[in-house]
Amino acid sequence: MTTRKNRVWRLASRPQGVPQEGDLSWHEEPVGDLADGQVLVRNLYLSIDPTNRIWMSDMPQYMPPVAIGEVMRGGTLGIVEESKHPDVAPGSLVSGMGGWQMYTKAAAAEMQVLPQSPQIPLDAYMAVLNHIGATAFFGLLDIGQPKAGETILVSAAAGAVGSLVGQIGKIHECRVVGIAGTDDKCRWITEELGFDAAINYRTEDVGQKLDEHCPNGIDVYFDNVGGATLDAALARANNHGRIVECGLISMYNATEAVPGPYNYSAILMKRLRVQGIIILDYAHRFGEAIPKLAQWLATGQLKYRIFTVDGLENAPKALVQLLKGANTGKMAVKISEP
Amino acid sequence: MTTRKNRVWRLASRPQGVPQEGDLSWHEEPVGDLADGQVLVRNLYLSIDPTNRIWMSDMPQYMPPVAIGEVMRGGTLGIVEESKHPDVAPGSLVSGMGGWQMYTKAAAAEMQVLPQSPQIPLDAYMAVLNHIGATAFFGLLDIGQPKAGETILVSAAAGAVGSLVGQIGKIHECRVVGIAGTDDKCRWITEELGFDAAINYRTEDVGQKLDEHCPNGIDVYFDNVGGATLDAALARANNHGRIVECGLISMYNATEAVPGPYNYSAILMKRLRVQGIIILDYAHRFGEAIPKLAQWLATGQLKYRIFTVDGLENAPKALVQLLKGANTGKMAVKISEP
Repeated sequence: MTTRKNRVWRLASRPQGVPQEGDLSWHEEPVGDLADGQVLVRNLYLSIDPTNRIWMSDMPQYMPPVAIGEVMRGGTLGIVEESKHPDVAPGSLVSGMGGWQMYTKAAAAEMQVLPQSPQIPLDAYMAVLNHIGATAFFGLLDIGQPKAGETILVSAAAGAVGSLVGQIGKIHECRVVGIAGTDDKCRWITEELGFDAAINYRTEDVGQKLDEHCPNGIDVYFDNVGGATLDAALARANNHGRIVECGLISMYNATEAVPGPYNYSAILMKRLRVQGIIILDYAHRFGEAIPKLAQWLATGQLKYRIFTVDGLENAPKALVQLLKGANTGKMAVKISEP
Repeated sequence: MTTRKNRVWRLASRPQGVPQEGDLSWHEEPVGDLADGQVLVRNLYLSIDPTNRIWMSDMPQYMPPVAIGEVMRGGTLGIVEESKHPDVAPGSLVSGMGGWQMYTKAAAAEMQVLPQSPQIPLDAYMAVLNHIGATAFFGLLDIGQPKAGETILVSAAAGAVGSLVGQIGKIHECRVVGIAGTDDKCRWITEELGFDAAINYRTEDVGQKLDEHCPNGIDVYFDNVGGATLDAALARANNHGRIVECGLISMYNATEAVPGPYNYSAILMKRLRVQGIIILDYAHRFGEAIPKLAQWLATGQLKYRIFTVDGLENAPKALVQLLKGANTGKMAVKISEP
């Protein structure tokens, strides 16, 4: 084991604005010995999520920020290569917070063993059957509580979570409108995923298009971005509408205080319910979501795309690309082959 | 009946900033004849509420704005002087949206007949046993959902609704901290109403005092004001805290777009639930609230003050005074004697 070399991204400095080369530092280090109860995981995929940018900062957040010098935090999918825990066999497929590294040494309890089946492609565990799918599932259904016939608006609609939210909305017989940043993304969500309409926020007038595509107003807004899009949604929300606050990506790179929405008063006037979701709160309820998501995958009611960047060494670039909206579907770094 | 002269405030122009003389115009007009099914009410009290300022404006709001030339909208308590409806006898005490006028001619169904009892002072119907008490009751209990031992923060805490919210919080065994604008108000809510602490936002550092008085953070913030106070509350909210959005008085006189709270991201990070309340939505549930409120009044668990301005002709001044925070307790105009 000691012969294995780990490759690791550590946080070197807190980014000012867009993360720069040098904010993360590359290290080659010995893996070290396994303690009793630990497993050694070789990572296959690293999940790249907007929240990574939050963890790099010291803005007020839902977990401690990654400390300077610490391995960058991140979700992983990997294969157990060695185990000092009786319940986890080498060869097991596991997911967890393995971090931005080739090998993860962790207590077995920190890793979740996944079923391996020829019916479930490996990347489904990265794109759907994990925190991503669970966020879409609980965020939309538990917090958004859409009723059949209502209108759901989703931002970052071609992203990992947004693309699932829209499809789950269609499964629940809602009208679904998505906002995305390229015509290709807009085509994907309408032509392949079944969204009723899509708006390209970079080339179209979002307010005008919302008026057109949401003739009955907006009952649920699943917000991944904040900013002007949130204001446009607030202005068109129906009385008793729900805003699922899942992400505020428009502000993560901000270097100055960002004001809240100018239409904040709509919360009062329209009796909206605005509620945040952090998927960690639902860990004990994943058993409700994952089988449903797997079933919808199997029936073809749920589709996904994974946008992979090859090589752990490119993980920082992948994050910058994600924050720019380069990906369609789930952004992930492919670290090693199964 | 035609001999009776009505005196009426009509909206003359939409205020820019603080309402000015001339935004409302004074008229003396004949009352006119009653149609079948109508009642003629002589008003005793006019309720002056922050929401009056919203209705005068054309900002997006929860009811149509008062039209230019229309009688200014307002809640009233009055005595039926004549009736053309078999179910409403002359002499009945009624509440309703009688408007800023001496006499209200309305369909009987638009007026709610109140029980008259020597145990219930007339002004309790203006200050507690109406939309005011119901707003405090449903806003705190239905939306805020405080649990015993939690910390509730209330702004405009010496106002009509805020003063009741804090007392209902104490009845439910919570720690209650109030924010008000004078030392007298602060003394009233702590010494007479039983709040655990009060902060004078005009003379004290609100953030520092919140840190001191809310050592366990804030579980429920009952917001009547918006602005910097809302930001201070968001910064100190506990995970899964609730913000009852009941009023945004700090922005009602604004003449430019007002940004939402700078700490908006706390909604996401702390999984807050922010929800608006407009008491009209609870009209069908007043029967749950009013008897409870009456009971708490009878046992002395709930106290109130009414701050009256004499004479309908002074109603516009009363509104300006309310918006400046001159009142302690419920602001009302005394129109005529019972």
